[in-house]
Amino acid sequence: MPPTSIPAGARRGRPGYDQATVLKIAVEAFTEFGYDATSMGMLAERLGISKSAIYHHVPSKVEILRLALDTALTPLEAVFDAPGAHSGPAVERLRFVIRSTVVALFDRRPYVTLLLRLRGNTEVELAAMQRRRQLDRRVAELVKAAQDEGSLRADLEPGPVARFLFGTVNSLTEWYRPEGRFSQREAEQTIIAMLFDGLLPRR
Amino acid sequence: MPPTSIPAGARRGRPGYDQATVLKIAVEAFTEFGYDATSMGMLAERLGISKSAIYHHVPSKVEILRLALDTALTPLEAVFDAPGAHSGPAVERLRFVIRSTVVALFDRRPYVTLLLRLRGNTEVELAAMQRRRQLDRRVAELVKAAQDEGSLRADLEPGPVARFLFGTVNSLTEWYRPEGRFSQREAEQTIIAMLFDGLLPRR
Repeated sequence: MPPTSIPAGARRGRPGYDQATVLKIAVEAFTEFGYDATSMGMLAERLGISKSAIYHHVPSKVEILRLALDTALTPLEAVFDAPGAHSGPAVERLRFVIRSTVVALFDRRPYVTLLLRLRGNTEVELAAMQRRRQLDRRVAELVKAAQDEGSLRADLEPGPVARFLFGTVNSLTEWYRPEGRFSQREAEQTIIAMLFDGLLPRR
Repeated sequence: MPPTSIPAGARRGRPGYDQATVLKIAVEAFTEFGYDATSMGMLAERLGISKSAIYHHVPSKVEILRLALDTALTPLEAVFDAPGAHSGPAVERLRFVIRSTVVALFDRRPYVTLLLRLRGNTEVELAAMQRRRQLDRRVAELVKAAQDEGSLRADLEPGPVARFLFGTVNSLTEWYRPEGRFSQREAEQTIIAMLFDGLLPRR
């Protein structure tokens, strides 16, 4: 955050006010107040720049949102393009996808948090929700493939299983505290252990 | 929803405008627009009554919120007072609690959805979050007790396990469609199967 003591006239050309900074501040505000309740004026104030100066970095509020959601979705989608999602038994590919989704969530946490909280009806939000549903479908396909190869129990429906898998992973955005003693690596391992092996002991 | 053709003067004494109706409409609006963005005027408009008439049913917006969150939390808390949460091995009590939490969530779904979406700093919201954390603690205690009796794997931390358990259950508010072909009973069974037995086959 910029020190508030810098005179307005000196701010315009200050280094650090690149698009990434505007995006970061905007995502924080969208998450805190909601997208609709956040104005470009509020963002400019938080950045300590004038309302006209913010348009040097981003064309509009909706473009910031589009960029923010893309920042969340691109690495989540990339998980499915990695080699680990394409080689080996389906159960191993599913495990890779869930594990990598946790990693991507931690890496882009504020953006993923925003993505998960949005429920609006703007074109940009609907497009992002469509991309999320595509992730659901790809996980459901992996569940189905693992059931077909006999490596996953076959008595559960792939669609709901995919939704619950994401539900467990996504809950991290709600309660995980990076400063706590539970590491990201442990979070990843606990999720895989709970969902694949289950909480009951395997004898 | 009231028909909009009824003249304003006739509305005041209409049956059906009890506190429960006001609560229902308010919870829908709070969930759709956010608590802060919803005014008593908006609620009156949705109910088709005057702004002063709404105060015949509820004293204030914050009291509606308090009532709504209590409507969500009371049955979730009651789960822990039921006989099934107090008798038998800890692993059975834990299974009972998770299963009953799913049932309570479906029963009070709009209220639980509101509860889960709130992140404000009003006293009422903080009190509700405090009650949620108490539920987390009680589940974590059950996980610990089940680990101690040897009926649950002991290599996972009870606190995070409790958070993930709720994360899986709570995701239902985000994606479950009552009109779909996946029943509430199946949702309950799938959750228990995934979390306790795991997705891998048990041989």
